[in-house]
Amino acid sequence: MRRWNGWGDDTIEFALGEDALGFLAQRIGSGTPFPDAAFDKACAQLRPSRLAPHRLIDTAPAVRLRNALGQSLPDWLRLRYGVIDTAPDGVAYPDSPEQVRELLDYAAEHHVALIPQGGGTSVAGHLTAPGGPRPVLAMNLTRLRNLLSLDTQSQLATFGAGVFGPDLEAQLRAHGYTLGHFPQSFEYSTLGGWVVTRSSGQQSLRYGRIEQMFRGGKVETPAGTLDIPTFPASAAGTDLREVVLGSEGRLGILTEATVRVTPLPEYESFHAVFFPSWDKAEQAVRAVVQAGLSLSMLRLSNPLETVTMLALAGHKTLIGALETWLRLRGCGEGKCMLMIGVSGRKAAAKAALKDALALTRARGGVHIGRHMGDKWKQNRFRNVYLRNAAWQHGYAIDTVETAVDWPRVAGMMQAVEAAATAALGQHGEKVHTYTHLSHLYAQGASVYTTFVYRLAGNFEQDLARWRTLKQAVSQAIVANGGTISHQHGVGSDHAPYLPAEKGELGLSAMQALFRHFDPQQIMNPGKLLPSEAVPS
Amino acid sequence: MRRWNGWGDDTIEFALGEDALGFLAQRIGSGTPFPDAAFDKACAQLRPSRLAPHRLIDTAPAVRLRNALGQSLPDWLRLRYGVIDTAPDGVAYPDSPEQVRELLDYAAEHHVALIPQGGGTSVAGHLTAPGGPRPVLAMNLTRLRNLLSLDTQSQLATFGAGVFGPDLEAQLRAHGYTLGHFPQSFEYSTLGGWVVTRSSGQQSLRYGRIEQMFRGGKVETPAGTLDIPTFPASAAGTDLREVVLGSEGRLGILTEATVRVTPLPEYESFHAVFFPSWDKAEQAVRAVVQAGLSLSMLRLSNPLETVTMLALAGHKTLIGALETWLRLRGCGEGKCMLMIGVSGRKAAAKAALKDALALTRARGGVHIGRHMGDKWKQNRFRNVYLRNAAWQHGYAIDTVETAVDWPRVAGMMQAVEAAATAALGQHGEKVHTYTHLSHLYAQGASVYTTFVYRLAGNFEQDLARWRTLKQAVSQAIVANGGTISHQHGVGSDHAPYLPAEKGELGLSAMQALFRHFDPQQIMNPGKLLPSEAVPS
Repeated sequence: MRRWNGWGDDTIEFALGEDALGFLAQRIGSGTPFPDAAFDKACAQLRPSRLAPHRLIDTAPAVRLRNALGQSLPDWLRLRYGVIDTAPDGVAYPDSPEQVRELLDYAAEHHVALIPQGGGTSVAGHLTAPGGPRPVLAMNLTRLRNLLSLDTQSQLATFGAGVFGPDLEAQLRAHGYTLGHFPQSFEYSTLGGWVVTRSSGQQSLRYGRIEQMFRGGKVETPAGTLDIPTFPASAAGTDLREVVLGSEGRLGILTEATVRVTPLPEYESFHAVFFPSWDKAEQAVRAVVQAGLSLSMLRLSNPLETVTMLALAGHKTLIGALETWLRLRGCGEGKCMLMIGVSGRKAAAKAALKDALALTRARGGVHIGRHMGDKWKQNRFRNVYLRNAAWQHGYAIDTVETAVDWPRVAGMMQAVEAAATAALGQHGEKVHTYTHLSHLYAQGASVYTTFVYRLAGNFEQDLARWRTLKQAVSQAIVANGGTISHQHGVGSDHAPYLPAEKGELGLSAMQALFRHFDPQQIMNPGKLLPSEAVPS
Repeated sequence: MRRWNGWGDDTIEFALGEDALGFLAQRIGSGTPFPDAAFDKACAQLRPSRLAPHRLIDTAPAVRLRNALGQSLPDWLRLRYGVIDTAPDGVAYPDSPEQVRELLDYAAEHHVALIPQGGGTSVAGHLTAPGGPRPVLAMNLTRLRNLLSLDTQSQLATFGAGVFGPDLEAQLRAHGYTLGHFPQSFEYSTLGGWVVTRSSGQQSLRYGRIEQMFRGGKVETPAGTLDIPTFPASAAGTDLREVVLGSEGRLGILTEATVRVTPLPEYESFHAVFFPSWDKAEQAVRAVVQAGLSLSMLRLSNPLETVTMLALAGHKTLIGALETWLRLRGCGEGKCMLMIGVSGRKAAAKAALKDALALTRARGGVHIGRHMGDKWKQNRFRNVYLRNAAWQHGYAIDTVETAVDWPRVAGMMQAVEAAATAALGQHGEKVHTYTHLSHLYAQGASVYTTFVYRLAGNFEQDLARWRTLKQAVSQAIVANGGTISHQHGVGSDHAPYLPAEKGELGLSAMQALFRHFDPQQIMNPGKLLPSEAVPS
């Protein structure tokens, strides 16, 4: 069963070994474990539902609590400490577009705020119920999960938008196809969630971002149904898919989505290459990505992330031997690890890999074969469980991500890490912070930074630490010309930083667009953009 | 100098030979030449300008006439017959964003309708001045033409948006780069025009459509300046570039555009492959494009286009020999010609070509080498001059284009050609109509159909012929599930067919968006979407 106050399924544990704990203790001090709040006690905090009864709405506290929050650090703090100051008044699980429409009409009639959700994996506060007098209904869309049609000629598949990643891939695999969208949240996030938050998967280099995969669909909006047909391309005015992408529930409910699929790759492998320094590594990945080779993944860790991954890998003797060997090949202190993935027809994939390795070799890269790559693949959806393990030892893990053009990449990385260190320094704490480039483009890269720091064991204090940290790193992103999100979306937590990149005119244009579809402002108020005064 | 009543530069002639004329006479009857109206006589028809004087505005009739119309067939009819029933009251050539702003303010103050234009190559009526009492100002943006910055690390170039294709490529070539956007209008169309009409170039398979190239820019709108920064990717809400793309002048003036560029390709070649039948050819191109090979162009002609291209090629003996040889290889009656382009690093391009040729060979394809490909490349921007030559012999040439998913491609092609034949049959005329797939996608293809038919020699009659034709083929496109434009845009001529693909809700969303940027509806009223009542 899904954990109610942590990541993923409660039968899956991903422990931190003694070596890893020793490493963390040395970096930022020992953590102090403390007990979590009980589920029943948390449920008991929910005030009575304010919703008018409806046959599709469940107002049981346990159901409301399980649909109340996402996976952001402040969401975790609320759940772990049992401070449930926000929750919907009820939850509906529609199983058809008609039921979605019925619930939209209900919300309009009763002045209810409506929060659409899929797997609830948001790390940006997309799910928080707004305060105020309006009742709040969470609409969980995960019953809309079927493969509705598959056009193998055009390589298009239409799904109910609430389908989870593994379910979607299993339904496609039965026909020999894949979508190829693998964000770290893959196991618990949904197609609709990916679309409306502009998600990006680990193998976007081959399969594209969700923007490129999303080819058409149906959206139930308060103002009516928006039906977007599929065309291979069009020059006919505004692309309505782009109105839906990144709309974060503000204009309606995506019920069906048609996506581009491809035959399952004949071959796939992942490879680790080490570089003597960040500069060499950055030059190498830029050369590789700008060569336009048919790779499926490039992921570059900075020196401290490289050290951390090796420390967390276990197998101390094996890793020791690897590091000695790398040192002899010129990759000592300051080395960086690049993960390269190739997928596709075997001959083409191997040819692309060969070309990529030649470009890395020319810049000091040392290819160590498939072992670490295979490990990475095994754990690609498991590493996120480390958040659970770290918490049990008294540590918080949080991340931020952005994307910038090449000349700003290294500076952004340094600025975000420095901002985190200074922010937690204000609380007398150290932070273990490290970065990787998670997605590489000819134009630049995403910059993905992780923060590990100690929990205080107290809700108020930990919320204050997080706020200082989040504000500092978000300001660093804006100051260095980055987007406030490359793959997590905006939600509540990033909304204050959106004006920096959209401008006042751009923001008000988004506002005008959403108001058109949702004149009563029923839909996910306060997310992405601030809500305006609601017409009564 | 640019022809005032035809395509391109008046020093360039592209004649129709005796064989070609014989071929047309046999297909649709002989054309009857008739004289064109004189420039001075056409100028004399312009009514006096209604614009309040402004130092940046030229109201000379010759300047107004040269900025009055585009290259659609009804535009040609007006110019050739000298029926100038529409023209702007004046023309401004701003040379800075500040002058653009000044002219926008002038237009707002004086209730002037403003038509932005680049090279004036629209074939969909984008430039027609609206009727009614409001004075009309054409804003010609071709003085905004400089390369403003080049970031070679990120492969981004920023240009004044009014830069013509050849000027843009020359400025990039000096640094070793190319944009790679080559629509047939390349020589006389501009970057800004490409962006706001969602243009697609002949080598989009390698370089992408303008949508993928356009990375950011500046738009002067009546409501203020929209400044869109460049990011490699972003998950932060609505992508404002998509608000500008396809906006066809309805929300403001794109003054600067940042585009993705790449190093000039080391190697480039074009190759012709013949197939025994359309079915085999369609299967082959689908296999090739879905294999994701690094090609730069795929362009497939149907049997009648293939016959026409061979008939127009001249060199009767050479072509006769080719056809005999092709017949021996299985490509006789009903054969189809595919043009394949490869560009890039020599080894990679040759490898991709080899893979593509193997896939075509397996489906009956016969590769005839580079000769026809070289010819195609030589004439890639010249074939459009055939419109001038055909007119001189009493023939009209017009085209329509759409895009559909694979299962609809062949049916669309047949439906559009049949609709054209029936439409001109109503006027007792034959039409020579043929089709190619101009852009290939994994999902489907653009379907590009050409019509050659006889002119009546009389404005009213020829306008009536065109109207019957245009309506019939547009209805066929809509009935067969195609977009009303894959690469020409909407303008005036396609606007009636937009509701079929956007829906009422989608159209009104576009309306709301444009109204936000242009509350007084100064900008290009009546294009793309119908104008609403203008607030006074």
